[in-house]
Amino acid sequence: MSITILAEGSATSPSGWRAATWACGIKYHNRDDLALLVSEQPCSAAAIFTTNRVKAAPVRYDQALMARNASALRALVVNAGNANACTGSAGDESALVMVRSAEAALNLPEDSVFVMSTGTIGVPMPIERVVSGIRRAALNLDAAHGHAAARAIMTTDTHPKQVALRVALPSGVTVTLGGMAKGAGMIHPNMATMLSLVTSDAAITPQALDEALRHAAELSFNSISIDGDTSTNDTLLVMANGSAGNRPIEQLESPDGAALLEGLIAICQHLAHAVVRDGEGATRFITIRVRGARSNADAKLAAMTIAKSPLVKTALYGADPNWGRVLCAIGYSSAEIDPERVVLDFGGLRVLEGGLPLPFDEAAASDRLNVPEVLIEAELGLGNGTATVWTCDLTEEYIRVNATYRT
Amino acid sequence: MSITILAEGSATSPSGWRAATWACGIKYHNRDDLALLVSEQPCSAAAIFTTNRVKAAPVRYDQALMARNASALRALVVNAGNANACTGSAGDESALVMVRSAEAALNLPEDSVFVMSTGTIGVPMPIERVVSGIRRAALNLDAAHGHAAARAIMTTDTHPKQVALRVALPSGVTVTLGGMAKGAGMIHPNMATMLSLVTSDAAITPQALDEALRHAAELSFNSISIDGDTSTNDTLLVMANGSAGNRPIEQLESPDGAALLEGLIAICQHLAHAVVRDGEGATRFITIRVRGARSNADAKLAAMTIAKSPLVKTALYGADPNWGRVLCAIGYSSAEIDPERVVLDFGGLRVLEGGLPLPFDEAAASDRLNVPEVLIEAELGLGNGTATVWTCDLTEEYIRVNATYRT
Repeated sequence: MSITILAEGSATSPSGWRAATWACGIKYHNRDDLALLVSEQPCSAAAIFTTNRVKAAPVRYDQALMARNASALRALVVNAGNANACTGSAGDESALVMVRSAEAALNLPEDSVFVMSTGTIGVPMPIERVVSGIRRAALNLDAAHGHAAARAIMTTDTHPKQVALRVALPSGVTVTLGGMAKGAGMIHPNMATMLSLVTSDAAITPQALDEALRHAAELSFNSISIDGDTSTNDTLLVMANGSAGNRPIEQLESPDGAALLEGLIAICQHLAHAVVRDGEGATRFITIRVRGARSNADAKLAAMTIAKSPLVKTALYGADPNWGRVLCAIGYSSAEIDPERVVLDFGGLRVLEGGLPLPFDEAAASDRLNVPEVLIEAELGLGNGTATVWTCDLTEEYIRVNATYRT
Repeated sequence: MSITILAEGSATSPSGWRAATWACGIKYHNRDDLALLVSEQPCSAAAIFTTNRVKAAPVRYDQALMARNASALRALVVNAGNANACTGSAGDESALVMVRSAEAALNLPEDSVFVMSTGTIGVPMPIERVVSGIRRAALNLDAAHGHAAARAIMTTDTHPKQVALRVALPSGVTVTLGGMAKGAGMIHPNMATMLSLVTSDAAITPQALDEALRHAAELSFNSISIDGDTSTNDTLLVMANGSAGNRPIEQLESPDGAALLEGLIAICQHLAHAVVRDGEGATRFITIRVRGARSNADAKLAAMTIAKSPLVKTALYGADPNWGRVLCAIGYSSAEIDPERVVLDFGGLRVLEGGLPLPFDEAAASDRLNVPEVLIEAELGLGNGTATVWTCDLTEEYIRVNATYRT
């Protein structure tokens, strides 16, 4: 494998990237709540947006932007504290003002800036403070500010989520990918959001980058579940500026394309896992692996149904080797199964075979679940379909965090 | 309306019905855990079973039985403490032995007894104790034992669930419907079950009864959600013995057919609501009403998605008027919506209109949610589709009940 994780990596680790932050006082006090991420060169870009039919204003803006210009983006402006969702036409105007202010402050052409927002919904964006912050931040761009940017986008996250890695392309050039994310969990005081940005200095066409992002998202952000809710603002953006000087990747099937795809999958999985680990109230990181399904789609259906089951997640919080709940979740997943062929392993201990429970030491089985990283494996015995997904346990603390009255 | 709820009604309120119970010691001690419900006359019957692909042995038996004989059932044998699920061919044998033992002890013909089980899964049924209990119970049948039967099928239920009502048919005869249920909630120590029996003395063909049951289930048991998990044993059975002497109902569209359907819907809703009210850890009974959808199916999709959202259920536990979470759930429900037309009312207080939040007193709104019975209404503004569903809140107590290590 030609991938190397960088120590202290961030979204500004790739060549030609700088960041800046500012404390606008959008909702939080005494902390940065706005970030700019800026590339020296025009970028190929690709993005994936929430499937929720209720879309925040920045999502609506960005979807139109990507249709107009996915080949020469230059920057991202992102704020925390206000999601600019359910804000009507004033919200659309605010998103546009954020974009145009960033383009002006950074001396960039029109349609070169992408915008993301996260925070409370249904509250008008305090646009003067945000515009002022954008102007101030634009004077302070630095490649060292990637870490500050990851902190500025946090809401209920308990720590920033960021990473960078190098990929040695078979053709000889080494490219770098960086990234940052803010967590889901969903959220006090209102619905919140999963935002993620991946930066790179690789040269790649927008079409190939789009294909790579869809593939990587399927194996990362679309393979995790915190509580099954989908927000108004969820956005995953990748921007690649070509500064590394590799011959532009046009086909993912090429050796360089395959290597870059590997790197993109790795960085997206790292960020997605970080989001799960920081799920509200979570005490365990749970990997669910399904094999032997009729198809990969069936395997994923079964795995995601296990990952979303409140009963499974609660049992794992209690370190309860409750194979019945896992088997039941598989049974109602609508994946094709033959109950008499199902095999289940909890932390490497076989608990069910041929649809029947095996005799096992319940205390020993519980010990295998009473750890920070839990592995649940299901073999369906029907074919070659496989899937791996990640989730966290469901705890009393999740209820406490989410039931608190908004103030 | 020609429906009258009976005081102290039970599954033996209809004419020609008797019950008996016995303490077999299947799992519980010092309480009845087996019930027989017996009709003096052969019954038309209809049943709806779990959609889980992992089906308990009694479900497999009953599905075949209903294909052979839905026109002359005589009795139900039901036990608590052991679900007879994931028990392999020995489990199929145990279900058959329960049925044949009941047929012999009650001196009934073959294929006249239906069987239900609920409790721990993956544990062999202690069949000798059960058979002995069936023989003892058969000697003790009485129309006064309906209440004892409802108690005997409880698992984590905190109280028995039963009801009876009279329907004055337009043709002049009054018929009675009785029923009992055991709750979902899903369950310590393993997955458990929703079981429900409706008895009647009405005369109706099996075909008309089947059609009526499917209609009634759609508006009751298929319109509730505790936690979205579906068990291996869920069963809803209706048996009607014709003792009331009405002219047999062959068409639901007839005046008598429509009246009986109303009664069946009422009794199924009563039992389904009782199950929700007794959901594990629940502190509020929540009614969710969606109007103005493109179709009834869309309305139900939106309503059930709200009912299943952990974020909505947790917010309602906290009496948090969090319209954002409700709007988001509608948005990801896959029902067709136009966010700018959505109207939301919490406890009669309008909180959102045209997709935008209205100014409202948050404390006053919270007061309207801080009650045992909460009403959430959504108007989609697209058509005439409506649906009403029921759920409960998600609390720390649910986590505690379900995370406890099995012992």
